[in-house]
Amino acid sequence: MTHMPKKAIVLLSGGLDSLTVLALAQRQGFECYALSVDYGQRHTAELQAAALIATKYRVVEHKIIKIDLGAIGGSALTDTNIAIPDAIQSGIPVTYVPARNTLFLALALGWAEVLGLRDIFIGVNAVDYSGYPDCRPEFIQAFQKMANLATKAGVEGGRFTLHTPLILLSKAEIIKQGIDLGVDYRLTVSCYAADRDGRACGICDACRLRKKGFTQAALPDPTQYQQ
Amino acid sequence: MTHMPKKAIVLLSGGLDSLTVLALAQRQGFECYALSVDYGQRHTAELQAAALIATKYRVVEHKIIKIDLGAIGGSALTDTNIAIPDAIQSGIPVTYVPARNTLFLALALGWAEVLGLRDIFIGVNAVDYSGYPDCRPEFIQAFQKMANLATKAGVEGGRFTLHTPLILLSKAEIIKQGIDLGVDYRLTVSCYAADRDGRACGICDACRLRKKGFTQAALPDPTQYQQ
Repeated sequence: MTHMPKKAIVLLSGGLDSLTVLALAQRQGFECYALSVDYGQRHTAELQAAALIATKYRVVEHKIIKIDLGAIGGSALTDTNIAIPDAIQSGIPVTYVPARNTLFLALALGWAEVLGLRDIFIGVNAVDYSGYPDCRPEFIQAFQKMANLATKAGVEGGRFTLHTPLILLSKAEIIKQGIDLGVDYRLTVSCYAADRDGRACGICDACRLRKKGFTQAALPDPTQYQQ
Repeated sequence: MTHMPKKAIVLLSGGLDSLTVLALAQRQGFECYALSVDYGQRHTAELQAAALIATKYRVVEHKIIKIDLGAIGGSALTDTNIAIPDAIQSGIPVTYVPARNTLFLALALGWAEVLGLRDIFIGVNAVDYSGYPDCRPEFIQAFQKMANLATKAGVEGGRFTLHTPLILLSKAEIIKQGIDLGVDYRLTVSCYAADRDGRACGICDACRLRKKGFTQAALPDPTQYQQ
């Protein structure tokens, strides 16, 4: 039997966390397949960033799957009638997209099964995050258990592993780790209200978390802001 | 507080099982929202059947969400290069669509959260079925557990219930129950190779299971066959 390289799917949104995860997965020796989802998010600059990152990092294949979550609605990210808040909200904010990570991981699981892979990386974080329930360790554990019951691979004895290397890191720790790996964060778009050129608003939840990360890491913030 | 009617989402493929589930849910007093998924399945007659059923059964709303699972491939149902088998296969057959029910339930979960509902009906069956892993009770239980961790509703104390009233019934028992509820199975399309008019091939897995069900129930089979 010839040596088989390790292979993994990386969920690549185009944001800071997902690029860090891709760099980490490659450093761990995984050949990476990148999966992005065009779910009707208003910040389409994010997907352009994902495409650019996929090319720069020479992933084996980059798939952008289109699914219209705007048809379901219920989030400021997919419904332009709901404004992006410019202040931190208490509780789970309106930018929460119902069942988003469940859906993204379901797509990754399906593709993993077709490719014969057992490793999926996702850049969820439960420290400097917006309180989305589907970013927490208990969700990830429950999804992994379900995945092994849901699939042909699971039934036949293969086990899926969800890798969440950032889940317990602060944003500053994530950024430091990325910089150590040589990541150029100018490639990424975090802002929910980014303009067509990917320039950030500086005031939404995602911008605030990102800014705070660079400040706390005592590293220069390379983000391009709108003003 | 005024009386609130019970409301539920029903996954409606357009096949025999899903129509039976819709009729059962309505009989149990649920106001039903129907969800169908246009996932690139080759048997588009199924979706036409779903639309017709949704109208006849006066669901509150019928949503057809489009997602291109053909981009992932790996199944005879979404890849026209893989033929639909005309004989029963051992093991999990090529018509298995990787992670399909995980994905469908994720979509239902997202919509349920937006609508503020806690009940989802799905017509999975683990008796007269094709051996798909995501039709088994242990998968459904694991998904329900994950769903309550994945969502705002779950975090805030609401609990989702996945209703699978057919999961342990034989096809004949499902059909008898449907007939008791006044279901007209001519409305449904089960065949993987149905033609544009919804006429069935009579030889694929889905056709065989359906035929056997009517025979064992000793009821006339109303299915329109191609020959």
